[in-house]
Amino acid sequence: MSIQIPRGTQDILPGQSDIWQLIEQKARDLCKKYQYREIRTPIFEHTELFTRSVGDSTDIVQKEMYTFEDRGERSLTLRPEGTASAVRSFVENKMFGHANQPVKLYYMGPMFRYERPQAGRYRQFVQFGVEALGSADPAIDAEVISLAVMLYRELGLKSLKVVINSLGDKDSRKAHRDALVNHFQPRIGEFCADCQNRLRTNPLRILDCKQDRDHELMETAPSILDFLNEDSREYFLKVQKYLTDLGISFEVDANLVRGLDYYYHTAFEIMSEAEGFGAITTLCGGGRYNGLVQEIGGPETPGIGFALSIERLIAALEAEKVELPIAQGIDCYLVYLGDEAKDYTVGLLHELRAAGFSAERDYLDRKIKGQFKAADRSHAKFVAVLGDDELQTNKINLKNMETGEQTEISLDSLIDKLKELLN
Amino acid sequence: MSIQIPRGTQDILPGQSDIWQLIEQKARDLCKKYQYREIRTPIFEHTELFTRSVGDSTDIVQKEMYTFEDRGERSLTLRPEGTASAVRSFVENKMFGHANQPVKLYYMGPMFRYERPQAGRYRQFVQFGVEALGSADPAIDAEVISLAVMLYRELGLKSLKVVINSLGDKDSRKAHRDALVNHFQPRIGEFCADCQNRLRTNPLRILDCKQDRDHELMETAPSILDFLNEDSREYFLKVQKYLTDLGISFEVDANLVRGLDYYYHTAFEIMSEAEGFGAITTLCGGGRYNGLVQEIGGPETPGIGFALSIERLIAALEAEKVELPIAQGIDCYLVYLGDEAKDYTVGLLHELRAAGFSAERDYLDRKIKGQFKAADRSHAKFVAVLGDDELQTNKINLKNMETGEQTEISLDSLIDKLKELLN
Repeated sequence: MSIQIPRGTQDILPGQSDIWQLIEQKARDLCKKYQYREIRTPIFEHTELFTRSVGDSTDIVQKEMYTFEDRGERSLTLRPEGTASAVRSFVENKMFGHANQPVKLYYMGPMFRYERPQAGRYRQFVQFGVEALGSADPAIDAEVISLAVMLYRELGLKSLKVVINSLGDKDSRKAHRDALVNHFQPRIGEFCADCQNRLRTNPLRILDCKQDRDHELMETAPSILDFLNEDSREYFLKVQKYLTDLGISFEVDANLVRGLDYYYHTAFEIMSEAEGFGAITTLCGGGRYNGLVQEIGGPETPGIGFALSIERLIAALEAEKVELPIAQGIDCYLVYLGDEAKDYTVGLLHELRAAGFSAERDYLDRKIKGQFKAADRSHAKFVAVLGDDELQTNKINLKNMETGEQTEISLDSLIDKLKELLN
Repeated sequence: MSIQIPRGTQDILPGQSDIWQLIEQKARDLCKKYQYREIRTPIFEHTELFTRSVGDSTDIVQKEMYTFEDRGERSLTLRPEGTASAVRSFVENKMFGHANQPVKLYYMGPMFRYERPQAGRYRQFVQFGVEALGSADPAIDAEVISLAVMLYRELGLKSLKVVINSLGDKDSRKAHRDALVNHFQPRIGEFCADCQNRLRTNPLRILDCKQDRDHELMETAPSILDFLNEDSREYFLKVQKYLTDLGISFEVDANLVRGLDYYYHTAFEIMSEAEGFGAITTLCGGGRYNGLVQEIGGPETPGIGFALSIERLIAALEAEKVELPIAQGIDCYLVYLGDEAKDYTVGLLHELRAAGFSAERDYLDRKIKGQFKAADRSHAKFVAVLGDDELQTNKINLKNMETGEQTEISLDSLIDKLKELLN
């Protein structure tokens, strides 16, 4: 009986994996230009890392984590997101003491959340994310946003919407929080049980509630933007100025909030506006945080980052029908005729590859017609045919599969000839 | 309090990650030349996949797997190796029916085994592996071995030893098995309890026993090579001939065995002979298998593959003191002087990056001296200095950090000038 892939996960097969490689390479190249450097953290961490950083009361921690005990009875969790691990490594490796500040990191790899699988949502998904730790310059907020935008643009996405907001600094947030409590308190009985709790614990999150989103008090709720003090307003204006300088248009949406206490100042999302992209339009989310490094045991350090899902990015590319420049086909397929020629192609194939060509031959004892078919399926640019006779006379037949042109050349000159023809 | 990385795992930090990227890119490039295509399977699989394919009685399954139940009470296991997942995907996606045969796959990613951590051995480690499914041509055995050898060679390793063996076909193995039983039976009481079991279940594995390795019967045990029937002997000779054609020297070691029933014909290992490399010298192991695809629910399909650990590969590079060509440094660091210039560099930096340069600027409000220091630490090839005055007159100062040469150029010409100088 056959064994199937676990629910909510997918195999990325040849063909698809070319797309993944191209996207990842583009992200790496961009990070090099922007001077973000890769960090790779383990697939699992001590569970405590996520309960502390993501937060005990979040859906992620309460319902969605893959948590288990290892054989040494440690509680481990498959990472549900990347920031906590990056910050853990930042602290453990004392990067706050490095000479080069801010520390600019990126990560790319699988994350795990036990959610109900649906179109475009997997239990294992891949995130690309960056974290800039150690600077509170609004220019780096613009840089981080622009890195994400550039990745999408360079891959060919056009229907993008950038939404930004400011959550202000501590004082601004406190003033806003008080106003929110005053606003909702008198009629909190009309809201769901979760919101009633939120009024005490984190009134900002009421604005995020899916159940109560249509309540009339939502629309009239006090906006954080009206409570920004001068520093916060100035900071936000700078971010907007820089984004404009960078040629990135954006909308300000006062309802874009992030519930955790760590977040402050800039919050942003990038959405796809492609037709038929589906209900979940957010491609990328990020923002500025403070206090997180401290929570993990390091010194107070400002940070900003984003995370984006490669699966969603690919879905957006499909929705916009973007054709990625995936190189198709191999340079040369070797066809043999006769036992000696067959043996000889083993070494010849190796020489071609060692010379830098992508090359292939038959491994199924196919007749010459079958070998030519296989060459076609491999989208070979050239087919070199070697028979026992040619081998005797040190010749080989080279066929240009595009033009159909065929020439007999000296066997020893095959590599030079291909170099000439393929350049 | 700080939270630490789980025992037996490691962070790959900036600097190190450059090495990983280079190795992975080299492996991808090689696979392209050899026409192996990437497959990515999930980090976890249904536990049954590994108990069936790796084998219930192995150390991996009995002691080393990270097994847990998800919230839907499915038993999942973090993959301890890559072949089982690749074959599961081959069967589930009916690749045995594809027109292009054999199906040549590669994978690269983390694997998990709960072992005692020691130098060079991690509980999470990364394997690069290939599987060629659907051909029983000895030429593909040579190809698979040569792909691994080429990866090591291209990265600069010199002290390599390739060891091969043949386990023969079914008939050869049966004859050898009977001979082994006859050899050990009379004195099996002198062997460990495990070996006494092995005599019934899998006498071949006695040869692998670490506890009894010095028993005199080990050295005199019948060699599989004396029991190869004609087909098997011919097959093995072909593999050796092809390896020689490919310029790969090797040793035949009749004691190189793989315990599972799936393995037959070719088995091989690649070892490092670098001084001071440590006790575990095996870099890569692989071989031919049959019956595995059937066990997972597919049709009978011959296969051959290898797996190698990137961590061990890096250790071997270190032991041989190979210097990898890691590109150091950025193209241009922007230094600002004055508030207007500071703001202006945000957009200018973006333009440089959009033009393809790796570029950086200060985000910590450093004085000009501090900015130059940062430029040094970034190994900048050029430093462009912009003051408020220059900005007024549309000029910028460009300094070649290698020669010390400094020129004032028009601000608008910076990108063209850098293109000229960096080519």
